[in-house]
Amino acid sequence: MGSSVAPVDPGQVYMDLHHRTHRIMERAMSAAGLSIGRAKVLTRLGAYGPMNQAALATRLGFAARTVTETVDALERDGLVTRSDDPHDRRARIVELTAAGRDACDVALTVRTKVMDEIFGVLTPAQRAQLVSLLDTVRTNLAQGEIDCGN
Amino acid sequence: MGSSVAPVDPGQVYMDLHHRTHRIMERAMSAAGLSIGRAKVLTRLGAYGPMNQAALATRLGFAARTVTETVDALERDGLVTRSDDPHDRRARIVELTAAGRDACDVALTVRTKVMDEIFGVLTPAQRAQLVSLLDTVRTNLAQGEIDCGN
Repeated sequence: MGSSVAPVDPGQVYMDLHHRTHRIMERAMSAAGLSIGRAKVLTRLGAYGPMNQAALATRLGFAARTVTETVDALERDGLVTRSDDPHDRRARIVELTAAGRDACDVALTVRTKVMDEIFGVLTPAQRAQLVSLLDTVRTNLAQGEIDCGN
Repeated sequence: MGSSVAPVDPGQVYMDLHHRTHRIMERAMSAAGLSIGRAKVLTRLGAYGPMNQAALATRLGFAARTVTETVDALERDGLVTRSDDPHDRRARIVELTAAGRDACDVALTVRTKVMDEIFGVLTPAQRAQLVSLLDTVRTNLAQGEIDCGN
C-alpha cells in the first residue's frame, strides 16, 4: 500500500505463494476424489508404512482429532484398515489397503503434476537456484529441529 | 535412496520445507494460545474486515465445515462475533472483537518472528534472489488463476 520499497521478505512471499499453491492443490486433489488432508495421510502411510494415529499426527503436524476424522473417512472408503497396536492397547495401527495404495499413487501423481505446472515457469537454471536456496533453509531447520518422530 | 542425481525438483523441496515450516509455525502458534487455523481466520478478518463464513472459506481455501468449527471455537473464546448478513438470510457475518484484534496482532507477530527465524539463515542477497524466484512463480499463478473471491 505504501510508497516505500518493502524490505526483502521471503517469508511473506513464501506464505502467499503457499496459500495459492494450496488452493490449486486442493482443487486438483478434489478433482481426483481426494483432498490435501486425505492425500497427506495416504502418502505418509505409503512412504513410511503402517503406523498408529498418534505417529501419523506427529508426522503430519495435524491435531489428533483431524487425523481421526481423516482416517475414519478413508476407512469408510476402504482405503485404509485399522488393527490393534501390539505395543499400545489403546492405539490402533492404520494401514493402506490395495485400493489405498492405488489412491496413494494417484495422490503422488497429482502432486507431481501440480508442482510441475507451478514451478514450470522457471528456467532450469532458476529451478536449480531455487532448490539450492530452499535447501539451505531446509538444512538449517533440520539441524535445529527437535526430533519428535518415533 | 538411489545413487543417481535427482533431477532439479523445486516442488519436492518446496513441499518438504513447507511441511517443516508448518510444524514450527503450529508449535509457535500453540505457544501463543492459537493454532494455524485460528490464526488464518483471525488474520483474514483483520486484513479484509467482516465477512460471512462462505467468503472466509473461499479466502482460506478451507472446507466450509472447518471454517464453521474454527469460528465456533473463536466465538466461544470471545475473539469473534456473528451477526445476520443483510445480503443473505441464511448467512452470518463474522467479525473480530477487540480481543480478536489483539489476537490477530499476536498471530501476525508470531508469523513474522517464525518466518524471520526460518529465512534468517540466508544472506540478504540470497533472500532477494529467493523473493525474486518465488515472485516469478507467484505472478505466473496469479495471472492464470480464476478469481473466485467475492
